[in-house]
Amino acid sequence: MAKKPYRPQLTDAAKPATFEVEAVNERGEMVPTAVAGEHPLTLYLDKRELVTLMTLGHAPEALALGYLRNQRLVGALKDVVAVQVDWETESCAVTTRKSVKDLKRKMGKRTVTSGCGQGTMFGNLMEEIERIKLRNDVSLGDEQLFTLVDKVRKYETIYKQAGAVHGCALATCEGEILMFVEDVGRHNAVDAIAGYMWLQGIDGSDKVFYTTGRLTSEMVIKCAQMRIPFLVSRSGLTQMGHEIAQKTGITMLGRASGRHYLAFTGRQRLLSTAPRQTAIA
Amino acid sequence: MAKKPYRPQLTDAAKPATFEVEAVNERGEMVPTAVAGEHPLTLYLDKRELVTLMTLGHAPEALALGYLRNQRLVGALKDVVAVQVDWETESCAVTTRKSVKDLKRKMGKRTVTSGCGQGTMFGNLMEEIERIKLRNDVSLGDEQLFTLVDKVRKYETIYKQAGAVHGCALATCEGEILMFVEDVGRHNAVDAIAGYMWLQGIDGSDKVFYTTGRLTSEMVIKCAQMRIPFLVSRSGLTQMGHEIAQKTGITMLGRASGRHYLAFTGRQRLLSTAPRQTAIA
Repeated sequence: MAKKPYRPQLTDAAKPATFEVEAVNERGEMVPTAVAGEHPLTLYLDKRELVTLMTLGHAPEALALGYLRNQRLVGALKDVVAVQVDWETESCAVTTRKSVKDLKRKMGKRTVTSGCGQGTMFGNLMEEIERIKLRNDVSLGDEQLFTLVDKVRKYETIYKQAGAVHGCALATCEGEILMFVEDVGRHNAVDAIAGYMWLQGIDGSDKVFYTTGRLTSEMVIKCAQMRIPFLVSRSGLTQMGHEIAQKTGITMLGRASGRHYLAFTGRQRLLSTAPRQTAIA
Repeated sequence: MAKKPYRPQLTDAAKPATFEVEAVNERGEMVPTAVAGEHPLTLYLDKRELVTLMTLGHAPEALALGYLRNQRLVGALKDVVAVQVDWETESCAVTTRKSVKDLKRKMGKRTVTSGCGQGTMFGNLMEEIERIKLRNDVSLGDEQLFTLVDKVRKYETIYKQAGAVHGCALATCEGEILMFVEDVGRHNAVDAIAGYMWLQGIDGSDKVFYTTGRLTSEMVIKCAQMRIPFLVSRSGLTQMGHEIAQKTGITMLGRASGRHYLAFTGRQRLLSTAPRQTAIA
């Protein structure tokens, strides 16, 4: 039997996801409209203020853990004693076993990334990225991909009601969705997935990461950090997203919708049923 | 004749907007695909490193100016002596007449905003926002709005080619587009518009701001900072975007597409041709 993963003390402080506001349409009709929640949440790491995230607030504990994980501020879940969210004070207090050393330097260098900056320490991360080796003994078939793309639609409950959110999923190579998170912040959704993976003791090295958002540099970096070899989006990509995908050797698919996709990098992990053809005119 | 606005020394270092990469689709066909550029640009204010923005690089000088304007780090264009972009070193050096005082404190408090954080000084900005009075002697008619929405489509050249960018426009209340900027970062596009407004000496108080992106808190804040009374998006809104729109009294329209829209706040500035009706069932 698998060992039960370590679990720090956690609050369970999810906020309601949507709220209703009134709007008037072009015909002068009152239209009650669902709106995605958006709340400031200030993270404190061992009583030191780190950052204020604007979040839907649906998975604040996993978000806090995933943020600390992806920013490389906490190295392992077992170093975390407690994660306590208090919406009264809009704060999340994370207590670790030993205070994080050198926090000031670690948080010092800010990069505002494309549309979705989280002040990642770009320089340090790029060095780390170049050392990462993603597994090559895993593969993804077309039918499994199409299954995953189809299933995502059923999970997007907040998007369907209110729009204005991004969704992320962690799935198996059989196309089964293991977790799905929506947030007003694209990065929050990724970070919350990273937090859940820690809490549930899930290894990313044979998984697929799906995002409704664009394939920018940070999305590829975060995926590679979690050792996930497949990154799928229904949107497009940016140039740096493509460059970093090439560097990491990740299998990156964009414009995945229905039974269509574009494979940009890492095609050796794809089990395509289609014959390899020559360039189309 | 209007006085020619002051202009600091500026480079003219626009990057090409798109690049081509190879992709393979689900039928195994090679599909050359346009990708939006994405480049790091580190801003230095009087030789002090401020931030690294990830940008399309299409309007880097206006972006740098607008960033400094919207972050309230430089108070007026005439304080700026020069803006010099050098892509070799991926840097933009801004020289001011007198060094910005108290920069460390001003840059100290970070908020990672929804999906699109630029580390805005949220607390300070909110105080400022509450003092802003937007003009009430301006109005926008339905037909003028529909004209604007229609015209935007013709400006979105990068989006049509490559996707993965957001667009912003500044328009008159007659629906004429004065400037249009696309960037991989939603905030970069807004900031570049703010920079162009400075450079061209354009007052925002009787203008319309259009964005392809969501109506989040920061979008409303930046619009109000520029004294623009109308904010239009083809996307949805978040709860804090709605709250701040109510506080500022801005006229905020979402889901604007074709001849449709939803008016959320500030409806007194709309000249609707439709009769005011009762709530729909």
